[in-house]
Amino acid sequence: MAAHPHGPVKRFEEKKTVVSKIRDVATLAGVSTSTVSNVLNGRSNRMAAETLERVNAAIAALKYRPNTTARHLKTGHTPLIGLLVPSMANPMYGFIAREIETLAQERYGFRIMIGNTYRDKDKESRFFDDLLSHGVRGVIIISSLIDEQHVEAAAVRGLVIVSYDRRATANMTSIIDHVTVDSFESARIATQHLIEQGHTRLAFVTPAGRTMSRNEKISGFLAAAKSAGLEQTARVVEGTPVDDYGDSMMSELGRLQASVLAKLLERPTGVIGVNDLMAFGLMAGFRDAGLAVPQDVSVVGIDNVFLSTLMHPAMTSVRLPVPEMAQVMVERVMRRLADPTIATQEFIFQPTLVARDSVAPFRQVFC
Amino acid sequence: MAAHPHGPVKRFEEKKTVVSKIRDVATLAGVSTSTVSNVLNGRSNRMAAETLERVNAAIAALKYRPNTTARHLKTGHTPLIGLLVPSMANPMYGFIAREIETLAQERYGFRIMIGNTYRDKDKESRFFDDLLSHGVRGVIIISSLIDEQHVEAAAVRGLVIVSYDRRATANMTSIIDHVTVDSFESARIATQHLIEQGHTRLAFVTPAGRTMSRNEKISGFLAAAKSAGLEQTARVVEGTPVDDYGDSMMSELGRLQASVLAKLLERPTGVIGVNDLMAFGLMAGFRDAGLAVPQDVSVVGIDNVFLSTLMHPAMTSVRLPVPEMAQVMVERVMRRLADPTIATQEFIFQPTLVARDSVAPFRQVFC
Repeated sequence: MAAHPHGPVKRFEEKKTVVSKIRDVATLAGVSTSTVSNVLNGRSNRMAAETLERVNAAIAALKYRPNTTARHLKTGHTPLIGLLVPSMANPMYGFIAREIETLAQERYGFRIMIGNTYRDKDKESRFFDDLLSHGVRGVIIISSLIDEQHVEAAAVRGLVIVSYDRRATANMTSIIDHVTVDSFESARIATQHLIEQGHTRLAFVTPAGRTMSRNEKISGFLAAAKSAGLEQTARVVEGTPVDDYGDSMMSELGRLQASVLAKLLERPTGVIGVNDLMAFGLMAGFRDAGLAVPQDVSVVGIDNVFLSTLMHPAMTSVRLPVPEMAQVMVERVMRRLADPTIATQEFIFQPTLVARDSVAPFRQVFC
Repeated sequence: MAAHPHGPVKRFEEKKTVVSKIRDVATLAGVSTSTVSNVLNGRSNRMAAETLERVNAAIAALKYRPNTTARHLKTGHTPLIGLLVPSMANPMYGFIAREIETLAQERYGFRIMIGNTYRDKDKESRFFDDLLSHGVRGVIIISSLIDEQHVEAAAVRGLVIVSYDRRATANMTSIIDHVTVDSFESARIATQHLIEQGHTRLAFVTPAGRTMSRNEKISGFLAAAKSAGLEQTARVVEGTPVDDYGDSMMSELGRLQASVLAKLLERPTGVIGVNDLMAFGLMAGFRDAGLAVPQDVSVVGIDNVFLSTLMHPAMTSVRLPVPEMAQVMVERVMRRLADPTIATQEFIFQPTLVARDSVAPFRQVFC
């Protein structure tokens, strides 16, 4: 590493800019400053469309930018959304985070405060503390931990929270919104696809350490097997715990589990990974063991990250409608920031199977 | 999508907590409140180690958490670092962002405000505006655009900026720090590796649209070819512009370029991608064209993202010391926030080749 200290700083000419104030916007739009303030803070739902349009036009004409510190003091919150992800290094969470950030920024002028929480309850709680102390009130959390009491406790303290990747607890009212794909269905259609290709010895591979979505996927796998009369030859394989750190841990677990499955006398011929990273590892592990995918063993992932198409063979996976879910998450945060009295909801999206080349019809293997 | 509105909210018992104040910390540590404030704001470099230790112990004992809004008003900045990335959906940037966030949070209690800028100068400038209006003063920008005047202009306005993935402009003093891998060297060692395996027809594939790091990689490729007397058979292939959106664009470009290269009469047998995503696409594209990697064509990537090991064959790549670079970036921001008078520097890290199975010795191919 070479370090080259530099000398004195370069000079720049300062541009003189006229800074517009909120009353300039109000004057140009012919409204009160409080009306402008309502628009800036998302409280425009009861405003005449024509008024809103005039205010927005004045904001654009004057290139008005609110001083967010002053705004924070006045409204008690700042135009930031807190985003908790298990790990930004996981391509799936990176994709979701990018969609959320782009929407929040382009539509609402909100920026994102992001944190990696590794599905750790304490880290999640500390992030909630920091959000509150930063004056942030809107939060999207990707977590899926079984117990979400700490999330609800944060909502009681004033955060508007949308939870991704888990359903609301059954038969209970919730003070947070839930947006998720139907994880039961994701695993069910992946399994059904293998069954339709004639596979009877099936495996579903997941890390130990249950989350709501992992539990639902296991149920979906078992339900598909049962409805085909295959409950005796369908197995759930749980490895060591992995917290979606997003680096090599999930795929390395898949690789390891594949080496174990490959040695079984009655080894499975149709295998589903809890997500794409796991399935990438499974494919690599079966190859390491001398098995060809899909000739000797078929593999299906869940998430349909763009990398699935780059695998060899291109990997069959289950698509989650990420842009659509990101849009609902951002809209729910913004709507409930504007009106905290509206009821919470649960939004469940349906997955779709994307068939590629990692699944082949079952053929009898003579070892 | 099903939406189930919920009824009234669940009740929680509020825990009574004692909130510690800065003067409680000062009393316990036996120092003045301004000493505590200096510690909280990173101004501890001239403090006796023993004093610092005592203050930190008092902070821990009282579980003291600064009110960041009040802190912001007093210091003029808030404990956030702005992080500009081309796209969080690119696994390499997700990896870097995770390293930066974890360090900033665990060592300094700073959170990250993140934005996707798609290497767009206007988006970068708007993010700087927003950071200033949020009271954020420390910034890490991953960009590598040739022109960094807008970045320097933001530094003149008061931001403490560390730039990643580009060197300082030669023979000029800079008001920003630069942290980067030696990109010239990354491409040079990738090319040298192919040359050592007997390859003489070489190609370096990159999107059109130059960035500082792409230019340096091209120079490194050409320098390696020239020193082996291969300048006549080494070609730079530029595709359509791609701004590292991180979804399929970069790899799709690689796939397309491979299909073009595969048809050439004197097709290259050793090909380097500007980064791993490009190289993943190249491998897939050569396969599409009926060529075997590495038997018919060898491929090398740059970045060494963890997915390289999951490719089939496992892909040879060039490792960048990401954790080490992230640490220097975070430390530079914190040091210069504490003392804005210290001189800027350029930190250049060295890459290393990681040989896997996508490169084989050259063998004459009879078509």
